[in-house]
Amino acid sequence: MRAYDIIFKKRNNKKLTQEEILFLINGYNNNKIADYQMSAFLMAVYFSGLDDEETFYLTDAMAKSGKILNLKSIGITADKHSTGGVGDGTSLVIAPIVASCGIYVPMMSGRALGHTGGTLDKLESIPGFNVNLDTKEFIDILKKNQVAMIGQTKEIAPVDKKMYALRDVTATVESIPLICASIMSKKIAEGAKHIILDVKFGNGAFMATYDDAKELALKMVTIGKMFKRKMTAVLSDMNNPLGNAIGNSLELIQSIEVLKGNLKNDFYDLCIELSSLMIYSAGISNNRTNAKKLAAKQIDSGKALKKFKQIIKAQNGDTKVIDDYSLLGKPKNTISIKSKKTGYVNSIDTRNLGIASCMLGAGRLKKEDVIDYTAGITINKKTGDFVKYGETLGQLHFNKCRHLADIKKIIKLSYNISDSKPDKIDLFKDIII
Amino acid sequence: MRAYDIIFKKRNNKKLTQEEILFLINGYNNNKIADYQMSAFLMAVYFSGLDDEETFYLTDAMAKSGKILNLKSIGITADKHSTGGVGDGTSLVIAPIVASCGIYVPMMSGRALGHTGGTLDKLESIPGFNVNLDTKEFIDILKKNQVAMIGQTKEIAPVDKKMYALRDVTATVESIPLICASIMSKKIAEGAKHIILDVKFGNGAFMATYDDAKELALKMVTIGKMFKRKMTAVLSDMNNPLGNAIGNSLELIQSIEVLKGNLKNDFYDLCIELSSLMIYSAGISNNRTNAKKLAAKQIDSGKALKKFKQIIKAQNGDTKVIDDYSLLGKPKNTISIKSKKTGYVNSIDTRNLGIASCMLGAGRLKKEDVIDYTAGITINKKTGDFVKYGETLGQLHFNKCRHLADIKKIIKLSYNISDSKPDKIDLFKDIII
Repeated sequence: MRAYDIIFKKRNNKKLTQEEILFLINGYNNNKIADYQMSAFLMAVYFSGLDDEETFYLTDAMAKSGKILNLKSIGITADKHSTGGVGDGTSLVIAPIVASCGIYVPMMSGRALGHTGGTLDKLESIPGFNVNLDTKEFIDILKKNQVAMIGQTKEIAPVDKKMYALRDVTATVESIPLICASIMSKKIAEGAKHIILDVKFGNGAFMATYDDAKELALKMVTIGKMFKRKMTAVLSDMNNPLGNAIGNSLELIQSIEVLKGNLKNDFYDLCIELSSLMIYSAGISNNRTNAKKLAAKQIDSGKALKKFKQIIKAQNGDTKVIDDYSLLGKPKNTISIKSKKTGYVNSIDTRNLGIASCMLGAGRLKKEDVIDYTAGITINKKTGDFVKYGETLGQLHFNKCRHLADIKKIIKLSYNISDSKPDKIDLFKDIII
Repeated sequence: MRAYDIIFKKRNNKKLTQEEILFLINGYNNNKIADYQMSAFLMAVYFSGLDDEETFYLTDAMAKSGKILNLKSIGITADKHSTGGVGDGTSLVIAPIVASCGIYVPMMSGRALGHTGGTLDKLESIPGFNVNLDTKEFIDILKKNQVAMIGQTKEIAPVDKKMYALRDVTATVESIPLICASIMSKKIAEGAKHIILDVKFGNGAFMATYDDAKELALKMVTIGKMFKRKMTAVLSDMNNPLGNAIGNSLELIQSIEVLKGNLKNDFYDLCIELSSLMIYSAGISNNRTNAKKLAAKQIDSGKALKKFKQIIKAQNGDTKVIDDYSLLGKPKNTISIKSKKTGYVNSIDTRNLGIASCMLGAGRLKKEDVIDYTAGITINKKTGDFVKYGETLGQLHFNKCRHLADIKKIIKLSYNISDSKPDKIDLFKDIII
């Protein structure tokens, strides 16, 4: 078998066999197939696509490039994955809610890159919190506390990291089967039986259109089922930043406020929705209404907050932050952005808010960038809100910032304000079970 | 400017600017752009194509990766290029015919690879013949003898060699704009004013279908004209081996026999046709009929043979081979392949004959293979011929051969013989001027 023939076949829009896909992925993982052949293959896939069977074989080969965790003996396991958005720190609330219902939640998350945030950075804004556990420590903590939250270990689908780095520089990221295989290979390797996907669309999401997001969601659900996982996907709107905070400790505080039962915004709604789907999928509640009630109850009873404290403690974080946010540090500067118009917020360029937050220090424009955990943006006005001239749209929080004038301009330009009241945004557009 | 954005743009089927193409080709030539980005770009071009303007920019950038010869001061210059076939040694006859008419013929040719032969190997079957001249020596001999026949120097479109090697392993060879730019960048750099292209189609050619060959021919003519070259393209049929010989010294002997006026087969016809188009393009004859007469006259008068002798002498070859073929060496073995059927030859798998000749030692399956100049196949029966049971279809000539049984089988399977007489093959399907 030769890599050339596999590229040639896919270029000619022919269906690949499992053996061919395995040969290619293993060869690439073992450095026997060069980057230039893999990138030509990836571009051929961009144009010719992969059907469900081929995507399954690809996902399988990528998952098997590392260790596949077997969590069956532990108990019922459920995991959540979001395709990434602005202000999307739901894992911090969902993991404790679901774990407090007796479900095991093995969470391996990512870091911030570009305009989207990353769960790991949000967790690391807690002094001492350790996300760098090895597989054994991860499983030990999971068994003991029903939940562990770490970064992907090197053992999880290692070839995906290599392939993603290559796709990133060869304009082959935007391919639905490749995105699907990249996400699902990791989810399959991570071993949870119940997988809940939050696939976001809109101007703050990876997928700009609902149709693309739906195609990806359907593909991931199909592939997950081929691996005998119980799959659920939510299509959620990312034309608004989620909640009222963008930035690591700002989002952490928002999460704690939700867990304390003090805050019930759209961020809260999404946390309850996704938690309930995990609870329902796991069979803890017999219908989705009851699952939602149970999720809300875990907050109202304080059980979810207690579980969150347990997570922080188990992973060496300072649990005192829950009652004293000043331990998270405070940025030197806070600046309010005032509206220059009176009217309704018709739309927000959410991606730009994410980039602005990143420029304030909250994220990474390059992989090497160091994060300022306290930096970010708080959002006062969202789409549909009425705003008067001079009222605050949002606030910038930062320690040092080189491009403040630009950022102010970006925020103002991101708000589209006019006299007409816009249609209400439905946060949940669709659920695929 | 970033390579990523150029790949992305072409992937999205957008038109590239001259600056973008130049940036990419120069970057690749200077090793600033990696193979994996170039291969992704080439695959994007395979799918999205390049329009005439983009192909012109690409050809120009590739030509300018090296030296562009300026031959204007020498006189009228004409060059011929064939896309490659089986038994296609026409350069050996055409160059002396055309040069003997007072036209300067600067010929830079290629080597055998795969099923097709290469002019350089045919020339090197002459003891002592030196094809490795540098640019200065090349021009000196050209000025003195009206003709010089060498391999491409390192100065001619060097990035093409790098790109072709990459295309060869990434399944991106079969793209009309890329083939066009590869051929034309070299032809433009080589500096001839009049360029005659022999674009072959059929089962022994690079382009299997007439439509693909025509598309390539039209594109090359268009691009050549954009460089202010006078362009002519012939579309010739390669569903039959050309002439009656495949192999280096066998084709050389056939060429000398044609130059001596002893042989007037289809190989002769193509040599006269192509020579006449060069003569006509160069303005030596005022119409194509006269040009053909002149070409034939150069053979009949012995002027072409004399010129060939001059070429051999100028490039250190042994001119005695013209009158004594035994100086070329003789293969130890000759085996006749007999027909197992009576009937008409309806078709010949020409590519397979080329591969069989290669397996006898006449060509290279890998770049490192050493050629046996005396090995090859002589063809007794071609498409349309009547053959009786037991009559010889062709003869195998070789010194040593590991796979003789396979080769015999290949030859027999390559001949499709049946009772019905096939339509006559037109060697010249079309001429584009």
